[in-house]
Amino acid sequence: MDKFEPQKVTSVFPKRRQDMFRWDGWGYKDTKFVCQDGNITFVGNRYSICGQRLDNFRDWVVDMFKIDLSKMNLAAEPPTQFPDPVCNKAFLVGLLEAGIEYSEDGMDRTMRCHGQTLTDVESLRKHKYKRIPDIVVWPNCHDQVVQIVELANEHDVVLIPVGGNTSVSLAATTPTIQDRTIAVVDMTQMNRLMWVSETNLTACFEVGIVGQDIERELGKLGFTLGHEPDSHEFSTLGGWIATRASGMKKNRYGNIEDIVVRVKMVTSKGVLEKQFTAPRVSIGPDFDHVIFGSEGTYGIVTEAVVKIRHVPEVRRYESLVFGDFDTGVHFLREVAEQQLQPPSMRLIDNIQFKCGVLLDPAARWYTGFVEGLKHFYLTTVCGFDIDRIVAVTLLFEGDAKSVAHHEQEVYAIAKKYGAIKGGEHNGKKGYMLTFVVAYIRDFAWDMNIVGESFETSIAWDKCISLCANVKACIRRECERRGIKYFAVSSRVTQSYDAGCCVYFYLLFKHLDIPEDSLKLFMEIEEIAREEILACGGTLSHHHGVGKLRSKWYPECVSPVGVGLYKAVKKELDPKNIFAAGNLVREEHQPKEDKP
Amino acid sequence: MDKFEPQKVTSVFPKRRQDMFRWDGWGYKDTKFVCQDGNITFVGNRYSICGQRLDNFRDWVVDMFKIDLSKMNLAAEPPTQFPDPVCNKAFLVGLLEAGIEYSEDGMDRTMRCHGQTLTDVESLRKHKYKRIPDIVVWPNCHDQVVQIVELANEHDVVLIPVGGNTSVSLAATTPTIQDRTIAVVDMTQMNRLMWVSETNLTACFEVGIVGQDIERELGKLGFTLGHEPDSHEFSTLGGWIATRASGMKKNRYGNIEDIVVRVKMVTSKGVLEKQFTAPRVSIGPDFDHVIFGSEGTYGIVTEAVVKIRHVPEVRRYESLVFGDFDTGVHFLREVAEQQLQPPSMRLIDNIQFKCGVLLDPAARWYTGFVEGLKHFYLTTVCGFDIDRIVAVTLLFEGDAKSVAHHEQEVYAIAKKYGAIKGGEHNGKKGYMLTFVVAYIRDFAWDMNIVGESFETSIAWDKCISLCANVKACIRRECERRGIKYFAVSSRVTQSYDAGCCVYFYLLFKHLDIPEDSLKLFMEIEEIAREEILACGGTLSHHHGVGKLRSKWYPECVSPVGVGLYKAVKKELDPKNIFAAGNLVREEHQPKEDKP
Repeated sequence: MDKFEPQKVTSVFPKRRQDMFRWDGWGYKDTKFVCQDGNITFVGNRYSICGQRLDNFRDWVVDMFKIDLSKMNLAAEPPTQFPDPVCNKAFLVGLLEAGIEYSEDGMDRTMRCHGQTLTDVESLRKHKYKRIPDIVVWPNCHDQVVQIVELANEHDVVLIPVGGNTSVSLAATTPTIQDRTIAVVDMTQMNRLMWVSETNLTACFEVGIVGQDIERELGKLGFTLGHEPDSHEFSTLGGWIATRASGMKKNRYGNIEDIVVRVKMVTSKGVLEKQFTAPRVSIGPDFDHVIFGSEGTYGIVTEAVVKIRHVPEVRRYESLVFGDFDTGVHFLREVAEQQLQPPSMRLIDNIQFKCGVLLDPAARWYTGFVEGLKHFYLTTVCGFDIDRIVAVTLLFEGDAKSVAHHEQEVYAIAKKYGAIKGGEHNGKKGYMLTFVVAYIRDFAWDMNIVGESFETSIAWDKCISLCANVKACIRRECERRGIKYFAVSSRVTQSYDAGCCVYFYLLFKHLDIPEDSLKLFMEIEEIAREEILACGGTLSHHHGVGKLRSKWYPECVSPVGVGLYKAVKKELDPKNIFAAGNLVREEHQPKEDKP
Repeated sequence: MDKFEPQKVTSVFPKRRQDMFRWDGWGYKDTKFVCQDGNITFVGNRYSICGQRLDNFRDWVVDMFKIDLSKMNLAAEPPTQFPDPVCNKAFLVGLLEAGIEYSEDGMDRTMRCHGQTLTDVESLRKHKYKRIPDIVVWPNCHDQVVQIVELANEHDVVLIPVGGNTSVSLAATTPTIQDRTIAVVDMTQMNRLMWVSETNLTACFEVGIVGQDIERELGKLGFTLGHEPDSHEFSTLGGWIATRASGMKKNRYGNIEDIVVRVKMVTSKGVLEKQFTAPRVSIGPDFDHVIFGSEGTYGIVTEAVVKIRHVPEVRRYESLVFGDFDTGVHFLREVAEQQLQPPSMRLIDNIQFKCGVLLDPAARWYTGFVEGLKHFYLTTVCGFDIDRIVAVTLLFEGDAKSVAHHEQEVYAIAKKYGAIKGGEHNGKKGYMLTFVVAYIRDFAWDMNIVGESFETSIAWDKCISLCANVKACIRRECERRGIKYFAVSSRVTQSYDAGCCVYFYLLFKHLDIPEDSLKLFMEIEEIAREEILACGGTLSHHHGVGKLRSKWYPECVSPVGVGLYKAVKKELDPKNIFAAGNLVREEHQPKEDKP
């Protein structure tokens, strides 16, 4: 089974996204946390915890943040009035003549004016957007994108390519400073599987295809891509490329730059693409790496050839419990040192460990170890402190024999660090909860709890001090502001030979005016980011720079790097059609170009 | 044992290279093939086949190419007169004031005016260089390189950075079109080990350090870099970065872009360097990939942080014999499909298989299988044709248990393809011979036999047809030119998920005027390269473009790619100080800018 005709895939995104997806937050409309009669339930049927009362979780939230569940914020109403569109008649005529679909509908435009930061969500809910795209365009193939880019250059229209609008860096958020018409180019309808090669284990996709659609379609043929970022349900291949995304199983499948064999980007100067499909070359600078991470500012990625793999015979989840966070880090490092990383291996700290248990409707294990034999075993035999223990969740893949061998090797290392097994259920649950976290974030916001995460990458030798310093910094900043009810937490989500990726989570409840809470959060996050950088951490492991972190871009890449960014920009897009305003601030761009 | 003071390393290259290395070809002066009284011996004591008579090899050469061993070319004499240097007094004064060492000696300049193509060797031997560098400069640290680049910009001097001058793309060959002073920047004395981090498994080197020096110094500390290109004895870390090199053990250690964690390049606009040492980031385009492959045209790489590994407990060689080349390719592909690639795995075709045996002074195995029991076994029991069999050489590394497990898995696949084991001796010998091949090339040239190789990368599904077509093309072109005595051969040296790297070798004897033979070879190689590209192969897997292959650069990277190359060049080096003339031809640069 090699190569076949391009095959249309039904996208998880309909053109009218508002019919299927929440307009003012994360995810499906039919899926959310609700609070009724003092009980919290996750409604819907898409995830294993759906439909069950989460009493342990409720008690923890109420106790931790002193919430009055009878005083939840009311759901926001969608806007009925929209910022006046900036019209460009000639551009519209050009689209019509070329047979390219578009919409000027206010809600269509609103659905694509943002990413998924809390700033975006708050702006949506409060109808605060000063600027939204003036038009939504749906290309259905590479050639139509070429036509759109030509028309935009001809008629001086700004183009902002979007996929699932899951960005958490304000990269997809409409810039406020444009007087020109802004057309958002919605790539999600351009999502064909162009061909598959079983011999080469490669497939070519139009990049508007969404992660879950890729896996479903490849799965029918017995293949997998294996790229699973936390946004996997809604983010697109093109978005991954433009952001330099990382998936949780990168140890087996690679990060996006390892997965993509060939990629095509339409720029104002023409199409940038290597003229061959081969695994590796030495032919000068690799300009694919100008495409990766370009965040919509150089052009529109249209097609990509990616590596695929046979669906593994076995997928095995497991979890391991360690005495404390530092021990968990040492374990991860030794696994990396021996190059024995399973496809996924994540370390969660004590707070997340407890939250995971709280969110388990069954809660068998928690009950088990807090009150019963396991508690005794953990604390007395293992000498673990229940308020310090952490967990590592693991995912193994391969044929049965290799997986068994791999598990043995990893558990041998775990034993050295005093780990005990937490079981498959807890491992699997950890990964499922990844998809639920963003729903929790929006729900917390209904209770005026700010909850957001931010990530970094760091060398192994600085990982423990980074985590300690950043947590201490956040605590200090919370206390300094009189914030009494807060939680700060971290996890290590990716391991490399030379270091790892660390996430920080901050949740607090302080003020009843959400906007002011958010402002406080942004202040603290900025200070925390300064602390991360001071501790040797990076600006981002896989979320990108966007507009949110662009103030730090120059110090990360050096003045020569900024010069290079601008030189490439000038070469590829002399009229600044791709004026998303990410990475490098444009002149006159306000300090925080937020909605 | 983490981090220590920078430590000077004694380079395999003395400043006066001519004392240690051959001035007119590859390698050490004390090591070469000699022919005396009709016998061929490889003199010296650096390789295991040194000091022994190679009678089988001699008989094959004489028979294959109809050589009269009594009529070898006489050794060339080093030049005593040199092209007049283009002086730039102000630049020299600047160097003196900065305390930077330099030489204007003719032989010092000649030793660094070339790479290691046969074109270079022939030009050396015939004293044909029209242009050699005017001065050799030896920086001893990053800051001195900064000073040199500033002085060059100030005084309009061309800089050509060199390491071991092992390039086979004319990249290191002095361009002929420069009226300006050309200073070759010899990096080999700038080769300190700056620090080592055992926790992060990283080390920082000044990039003038030579491969064998890296392994020796890291080996003392129990570490290895694991990057072993065939030029490993003489090529430098900086050269690997500038060329996008690949090592034979890339399956375990990665290619150079996988190995380098951080890299520093001095450009005319300042230093290009990420401002952190972390395993992976998402902060816009990755400009490290502008450094990799820049072939000396954007700046001078000075320092790099690289991944290191503990020296493996076990290194196991093995060889496998397959019935024919295509079966060998299928085997490699299946090993890749199952992601079971050993650190090294190479497929050599029938001719190279035989040559390997011929070059074995012991020749036990050949005698064994050609004349004895093994021959019987191979041909009768296995049904192998002695003129079609091929071999795969393997290298495994790791702890004893993992290696044993890995071997089992690989041999299980080999069995499916009817392979029989060829033994550890033959596996190991295959790798040793890699280092001898370049000496053979120069020796063959003394017999007026042209022998050169060129490489490509290719998707798996096109590998077999590529090999067949290119070999057929070369045969056709040889026959068309009346070349009677020739050999054409191929090997697969690297396996990837989606394809592999293929080498082609062409040897022929036709004319008694070496220059004319070389011209013929260049004609055929050009046609073969066109055939490679037509078959879906790439311009180069790891040798780079240089001046030799620059005519094809535009069609490989597209006009937008060429535009990007030039835009970056203009940004980083507006005065074209780094005028090596690689990748993109400069205006007025002749079609073949060869010596």
